[in-house]
Amino acid sequence: MTPVALDAFVHRLASVSGDAILPFFRTSLGVEDKGRGRAFDPVTAADRAAEQAMRRLIAEHFPEHGIIGEEFGDERRDATYVWALDPIDGTKSFIAGMPAWGTLIGLLKEGAPVYGMMHQPFIGERFFGDGGSAHYTGPAGNRALHVRDCPAIEEAILFTTSPLLMDPPDRTAFHRVESKVRLSRYGGDCYAYCMVAAGLVDLVIETGLQDHDVIALVPIIEGAGGIVTNWEGGSAAEGGRVVAAGSAAVHRAALELLAG
Amino acid sequence: MTPVALDAFVHRLASVSGDAILPFFRTSLGVEDKGRGRAFDPVTAADRAAEQAMRRLIAEHFPEHGIIGEEFGDERRDATYVWALDPIDGTKSFIAGMPAWGTLIGLLKEGAPVYGMMHQPFIGERFFGDGGSAHYTGPAGNRALHVRDCPAIEEAILFTTSPLLMDPPDRTAFHRVESKVRLSRYGGDCYAYCMVAAGLVDLVIETGLQDHDVIALVPIIEGAGGIVTNWEGGSAAEGGRVVAAGSAAVHRAALELLAG
Repeated sequence: MTPVALDAFVHRLASVSGDAILPFFRTSLGVEDKGRGRAFDPVTAADRAAEQAMRRLIAEHFPEHGIIGEEFGDERRDATYVWALDPIDGTKSFIAGMPAWGTLIGLLKEGAPVYGMMHQPFIGERFFGDGGSAHYTGPAGNRALHVRDCPAIEEAILFTTSPLLMDPPDRTAFHRVESKVRLSRYGGDCYAYCMVAAGLVDLVIETGLQDHDVIALVPIIEGAGGIVTNWEGGSAAEGGRVVAAGSAAVHRAALELLAG
Repeated sequence: MTPVALDAFVHRLASVSGDAILPFFRTSLGVEDKGRGRAFDPVTAADRAAEQAMRRLIAEHFPEHGIIGEEFGDERRDATYVWALDPIDGTKSFIAGMPAWGTLIGLLKEGAPVYGMMHQPFIGERFFGDGGSAHYTGPAGNRALHVRDCPAIEEAILFTTSPLLMDPPDRTAFHRVESKVRLSRYGGDCYAYCMVAAGLVDLVIETGLQDHDVIALVPIIEGAGGIVTNWEGGSAAEGGRVVAAGSAAVHRAALELLAG
């Protein structure tokens, strides 16, 4: 697969998933409770329809590829190429009608993220990268994505989806970072990582991520010149506790504060 | 002014303000610190340009009307008709590149909110109402806005911009409500109120609002069949501590929990 062909194919995946999702956004249809009355864990008919549409297209064009999916589990996880699909990252924003959700489409080659896209079909935005460069298309035009330089943690804008999602020790560690930064905001899910790539946010810190929550984001952030690792500074591609930063100084300071 | 003429004029205000704002969104231009190093209180060149554009149009067509504005203060506040303008409600989302901000355009007649619009120019969405009905235009089509019925606080989706913005007693009261609801989310600013009007969110609770933060939202929420008051059940039009709900049952339960 050439880079151009890969890029075109991921754009097709984004289009078919967007077409599957949009009829369900801002309607009261399709909200189920995957947690069956325990924790609130909504999943929509949109999620399933979009993942099915993407799996169908992958199976048709690349039957030898593996797939990691949020809704329908894993297939051929030991293949050379494995797709990581999260049709609606930010389901809680989605069910509340807020636009801060997106479709994540990532590609692993021999276990390493090599391509990723975040697609927001309602707004019509796509953020995508291959680790070497990253790009944007949408209402703000077509442009290359570049992180911004942020010299110190005290200057940083920080995002996390919610500190309430963290266990108490991780929350304490998070608050050590939060108490230093210029501005801390909650919410955002995949959007916050794309804003790091776009040079508008300096730092994202989260816990409890699934691999399909983060694989697509790694090549976007790295392609824009940023850094994304786990809290120990290792690969972020397995999910778990993740730190993404636009500048090395902010990333290093965040890891030190998180370590205590 | 007929209802049709009023509606058309507010759409013109939205268009001129959107044109003034968009060149500044997702750029690193124009972020100032209104707080001069104290609390972080960003205001952008976009905010000023949009308010000036709207003030110019109002002065040209309705020189006898008053104006309450976020950036340039009040004029003729005792006029029969007074406009309430907040060019960028959600400045912190705006500077972080997130789309959860909007332009608020409200109209008071003899002190009571009679028309309001929330315009999100990047997405191209307008939520507007006159207290009797409310409507939407945007990527989700053109439709009437209606709140949904939510029978009990335990079923409710709650939004607040951030509990960190509340003083400690108010935060304690807020947490009494938060501990009851099905889902609590932070962020959203004016968007969360529009999602109440759209029947996707059940409850918004905030403190410390300015009058221009809320005047435009009252006719939208009431036009969609919802309820918006202060925490004591009185008029929300002065701002301060505000509760917006889609159903009377949830509104009543929230007021009781907030009162302690």
